[in-house]
Amino acid sequence: MKTILIIGAGKSSKVLVDFLLKDAQTKERKLILADVDARVAEKKLGGHPAGTARSIDIHDTEKLGELVKQADLVVSMVPAFLHPLVAKVSIREGKHFFSASYESPEMRALAGEIKQKGLFFLNECGLDPGIDHMSAMKLIDTEKADGHNIVLFKSYCGGLLSPESESNNPWRYKFTWNPRNVVLAGQSTSQFIRNGRYKFIPYHMLFRRTDLVTFKETGDFDGYANRDSLSYRKVYGLEGIPTIIRGTLRRAGFCKSWDVLVQLGLTDNSFQMDLPHDFTMRMFINSFLPYDPIHRVEEKIQRLLPWVDSAIMEKLAWLGLFDETPLPIFKGSPADILQGILEDKWKLTPTDKDMVVMQHQLETESPAGIRKKITSSMVIKGENHEYTAMAKTVGLPLAAAIDLFLEGKIQLRGLHLPIKKEIYSPVLELLAANGIHFEEELVLSKN
Amino acid sequence: MKTILIIGAGKSSKVLVDFLLKDAQTKERKLILADVDARVAEKKLGGHPAGTARSIDIHDTEKLGELVKQADLVVSMVPAFLHPLVAKVSIREGKHFFSASYESPEMRALAGEIKQKGLFFLNECGLDPGIDHMSAMKLIDTEKADGHNIVLFKSYCGGLLSPESESNNPWRYKFTWNPRNVVLAGQSTSQFIRNGRYKFIPYHMLFRRTDLVTFKETGDFDGYANRDSLSYRKVYGLEGIPTIIRGTLRRAGFCKSWDVLVQLGLTDNSFQMDLPHDFTMRMFINSFLPYDPIHRVEEKIQRLLPWVDSAIMEKLAWLGLFDETPLPIFKGSPADILQGILEDKWKLTPTDKDMVVMQHQLETESPAGIRKKITSSMVIKGENHEYTAMAKTVGLPLAAAIDLFLEGKIQLRGLHLPIKKEIYSPVLELLAANGIHFEEELVLSKN
Repeated sequence: MKTILIIGAGKSSKVLVDFLLKDAQTKERKLILADVDARVAEKKLGGHPAGTARSIDIHDTEKLGELVKQADLVVSMVPAFLHPLVAKVSIREGKHFFSASYESPEMRALAGEIKQKGLFFLNECGLDPGIDHMSAMKLIDTEKADGHNIVLFKSYCGGLLSPESESNNPWRYKFTWNPRNVVLAGQSTSQFIRNGRYKFIPYHMLFRRTDLVTFKETGDFDGYANRDSLSYRKVYGLEGIPTIIRGTLRRAGFCKSWDVLVQLGLTDNSFQMDLPHDFTMRMFINSFLPYDPIHRVEEKIQRLLPWVDSAIMEKLAWLGLFDETPLPIFKGSPADILQGILEDKWKLTPTDKDMVVMQHQLETESPAGIRKKITSSMVIKGENHEYTAMAKTVGLPLAAAIDLFLEGKIQLRGLHLPIKKEIYSPVLELLAANGIHFEEELVLSKN
Repeated sequence: MKTILIIGAGKSSKVLVDFLLKDAQTKERKLILADVDARVAEKKLGGHPAGTARSIDIHDTEKLGELVKQADLVVSMVPAFLHPLVAKVSIREGKHFFSASYESPEMRALAGEIKQKGLFFLNECGLDPGIDHMSAMKLIDTEKADGHNIVLFKSYCGGLLSPESESNNPWRYKFTWNPRNVVLAGQSTSQFIRNGRYKFIPYHMLFRRTDLVTFKETGDFDGYANRDSLSYRKVYGLEGIPTIIRGTLRRAGFCKSWDVLVQLGLTDNSFQMDLPHDFTMRMFINSFLPYDPIHRVEEKIQRLLPWVDSAIMEKLAWLGLFDETPLPIFKGSPADILQGILEDKWKLTPTDKDMVVMQHQLETESPAGIRKKITSSMVIKGENHEYTAMAKTVGLPLAAAIDLFLEGKIQLRGLHLPIKKEIYSPVLELLAANGIHFEEELVLSKN
């Protein structure tokens, strides 16, 4: 009998828990789901005989240690900054560790100890990071094995609305994950390389310098560059590649409208406002526009940013930014206040369905001079408010990796990302069997 | 016999030292000038019998204490972050303290002790801060005393080139003070109030949203808003004023060209570059432009920023940004590298003369409905490489305050800015007698 301890019963734990409970009895597994609130954990377990709910105060490391002792492996679903705490207790108790979050420098500092104790620690095994790594590495390794030289790698991912939920919303967007990250997205200089030339995009230029990314199944998107594409050359074994860009997807047209909010300063998180309680949405946006005794707010935007067209103005108006209604909050940074406004407008209704899209673009050259363009695309739609596309694509890779590890199909030890064939190959197969797969298109040409 | 201790023999100390030595013997004063390098101090004193040069390691607080003991008052001309150190030793030894730098929170924390010991501590008594406070408060206090209501206050200052040194330089600008501050200027959201409306300008919009500021004597300037104008409402006793803006002046046309460097990301100080040693100026600017196999760097700028005209392009070209010559430095933030480029081009020649300009604009209303516009302007030109406009306008206010204090004409005690009539009135008089004065223009109208 193997015991899996999952710490944190948040958004994507339902998918994870369901997957692991499905065959728990035949595979002789027990599952402990621990959360600050045991009732939340209880509910997620749905009375399954192999599941036990527990309450846990993560900062009580003694009690955490007792809980970890009972398990064979630990799945950390806590907020990112708490992973090292869970990881240290897991090492102390000699337990394996799984998470969907970025491998932090603190985690890397533990690599020696993890290896020495013969443990398997897997991070970045969710969607992005997670599926992106695995599906990219499969393409890269295959091309390399065929003796092809990879000259271009672009990779985009986005969490958005499923097309049937996009109507009556000119942004074709709602928050399907963490609103904060969306409002502050891109606030570091983006760095990548294109045709052998280093490129740096400052924040205030990011949403104007997007690429068009098209999915056969679901249409056009804007791709804006992520902060750091350069470090992935090393991670993916693509040193010396002349073009590498990783980016985030929004529906086509989103970025140039979002750019107006950036240009005006509404996403600024560097200072605090404390506005009078009769401050309206219109006054808020006006405070970022020049004083002008003649022109209206709408006209001032178009005078300041001459490229703003009626489609953009419609999106801004839809957010209520020109309304004489009070702000939802009066205190905080401009970004905090904007987030408050957006959380009203971009809130999922109970019937809304989300969608996750991912696309890799590769270009390779064979020794015979054959040039190949590969476009590998994944489109996943949400089923309901628990089985959202986001929850499935974050939860299933982790569940698959845990299942395969317990089955002995992953034999690696030490600290890992899912970039090794031994990990990604069985995980991607299991994901495909559960509806998460990529469609590939190929275009061949002779130089 | 009174002893003045000046710590730091930097740029503006020559003017200060000369002024204080002039009547030192008749006024029975001695002057100790201490610097890391005693020879630098020695040279500044020019062999005057009332002057003594000393070397000092500012971090050796014991030796600093011994030096301070010998003085009646201490003038701190050290880098800003070291003032609190000098201030604490001055308090310990019971000595008065003068500086031209901003009053820091650390300094404010000492206010109680300063008062208790009956000491006089004066900060912000240079140019900006300094002359700006004094000349503004004179106008404000006069208008208030006349029963007028101040409805608008704008105040601008700039350190630039004297017109005769502007030729063959399309920017009409060179570094006349700290280059670092110029390159990073404005990198916090600017906050002010105009016609009762709070206004916030993010960095990337700052150099596009300038005001035209005209001097009868010397022509047109761009004024861009300083970071924090709002806090001056309290400092200047202008609570409730509907319009207050403090800003910095550059020659007309400078800002929209500087804005291109900001837009592209060349002033970005948030990440480090480590470029190959064959990287040219042209490659540097290209790394902030989109990849494009057809268009040249110059064309890409105009495509990305359609408002860029030939006058702006001429300024960029003059900086050498389109040249295939190696960068002056290859490692550092974009701002560091830009600073290296500018230090080459914007370096004062031995014959260049600088200029300091300041202008206050006030609008007041009398109870009888008379509206008055006051424009008060100061233009100071440099004489030579020691008596620069900047050195004079920073050094003379401090020298004047020290002289007046020792003469018993300033009787205040405690921690102060030069915003009280007891300070600014005699200091401004003494400055006027030394060639630093404002010209006022009035326009009256009836509501």
